[in-house]
Amino acid sequence: MTCAALDEMAGAQVFFKCENLQKTGSFKIRGASNAVFALSPAAAQKGVVTHSSGNHAAALALAARRRGIPAWIVMPSNSPQAKLRAVESYGGKIKLCEPTLPAREEAARELLEQTGATLVHPYNDHRIIAGQGTATAEFLDEAPELDFVLAPVSGGGLLSGTAIAAKSMKPGIRVVGCEPKQADDAARSMAAGKLESCDHPDTIADGLRASLCELTFAILRERVDEVVTVSEDEIIEAMRHVWERMKLIIEPSSAVAVAPALLRRIGAEGKRVGIILSGGNVDVSALPFR
Amino acid sequence: MTCAALDEMAGAQVFFKCENLQKTGSFKIRGASNAVFALSPAAAQKGVVTHSSGNHAAALALAARRRGIPAWIVMPSNSPQAKLRAVESYGGKIKLCEPTLPAREEAARELLEQTGATLVHPYNDHRIIAGQGTATAEFLDEAPELDFVLAPVSGGGLLSGTAIAAKSMKPGIRVVGCEPKQADDAARSMAAGKLESCDHPDTIADGLRASLCELTFAILRERVDEVVTVSEDEIIEAMRHVWERMKLIIEPSSAVAVAPALLRRIGAEGKRVGIILSGGNVDVSALPFR
Repeated sequence: MTCAALDEMAGAQVFFKCENLQKTGSFKIRGASNAVFALSPAAAQKGVVTHSSGNHAAALALAARRRGIPAWIVMPSNSPQAKLRAVESYGGKIKLCEPTLPAREEAARELLEQTGATLVHPYNDHRIIAGQGTATAEFLDEAPELDFVLAPVSGGGLLSGTAIAAKSMKPGIRVVGCEPKQADDAARSMAAGKLESCDHPDTIADGLRASLCELTFAILRERVDEVVTVSEDEIIEAMRHVWERMKLIIEPSSAVAVAPALLRRIGAEGKRVGIILSGGNVDVSALPFR
Repeated sequence: MTCAALDEMAGAQVFFKCENLQKTGSFKIRGASNAVFALSPAAAQKGVVTHSSGNHAAALALAARRRGIPAWIVMPSNSPQAKLRAVESYGGKIKLCEPTLPAREEAARELLEQTGATLVHPYNDHRIIAGQGTATAEFLDEAPELDFVLAPVSGGGLLSGTAIAAKSMKPGIRVVGCEPKQADDAARSMAAGKLESCDHPDTIADGLRASLCELTFAILRERVDEVVTVSEDEIIEAMRHVWERMKLIIEPSSAVAVAPALLRRIGAEGKRVGIILSGGNVDVSALPFR
């Protein structure tokens, strides 16, 4: 999609890849589908497990249902009702645990032992990265003239897939990762040349609170040109522009990749900029607009 | 656009014509453009006037700007800032008046006398009705298999154009007008066989507070099969489903045409239903979701 009003703000020709309109409301169904359908028949039969509580959980549940296999989703007992309902509606089997990382990992380990299922990590997995990259492959098929492609970065699955697809299809394209200032492990890792992490990042972009792993960091170092950061206010403002001018519901994590273009932070004036709107799952009764 | 989750609720195959994504955020640009570009060069040069304060005002301002002629918009002095800004941003010249209908009509009359401009009424005008009908002409080009077409009704410009286009292109199609219970002049007029009005209707569907005129009522009697009404809660619930499941921002007036399908009120189970999402202009800081 395109929008004349946002083009004017950005001083550029902006193209949006609308993964908010994707099944389950985010790009995560791409990686989850690839991972689930890549399993051998014997492995698939035993099902899959994950301990993400966000978009990856819903996506894995639906991908598993489409293959006709079980998906166990470990979720913290304080998960919002909306997230529990989403996973259930896609047929996921929810296993509640205490809201700590050790408890989640322990619950997942127990499930794996009991069931023989396969763990599908949200980003530390080549099959997931390859799946997420298909968004950019489609994007460049539809808009081959892009000079830039922007994607949000959290664990780095989407950005890794984006960078691999973009640089393979169009080596001259500039790939920009976009990150909340308050969860800037990717920006710091790229600057330091070594993996840095964020402890308990506090950002409205709830899909971007994870940190890179060695696998995704190695891909980013090789193929991502820049990682830019944006403030919480900048995220909310960009989100509002997309809602008001494009009439599209995007979640704050998506707005993180919109803000740098609207704020003219990436030197893209006069160029053609592709932005991946990563998802649209928000609680419409609790919005950040004043 | 289509949405599997809404199909399931409706028990039907539902197609949406997304006028919320239209220029100025509603279908109104269609009628306004037709009216403005139908003017003779001599008449056009003197400009256009209207005293709508909603989507028609913004649409007329943009249509006039595109033809390079002035548009004067009479707006009540208590109009929301967002509506004033929208009209201004499209180049409309705002003339403020007291917030009463006589004051608006008087202000418009003065402007017409001073300028020699043409009054472009939001619906009591064949050129407007013809323009609005192009949404359905496009809809049936893209989805010729529709059994039903649903559109909201207020002054009746959109529904008249919808019915003329639909019944001309596909005589067997069922045309359903959709109206808030709290602004049900069209339903009552159709039942009584004579024009009835609503005084100061109080509905969240702010685009549907006008009443039919003789011109639109005559077209509706001839070509509209049914007018159904929905409650305020039903409007908000339908709006929430479109926001949450389709990730599309629609205004309450649009949701009025979605609710009867989701609530299975029109006997469309198993059929193919076209719904015109009339617009997407809402104040995102003041939403009705609890």
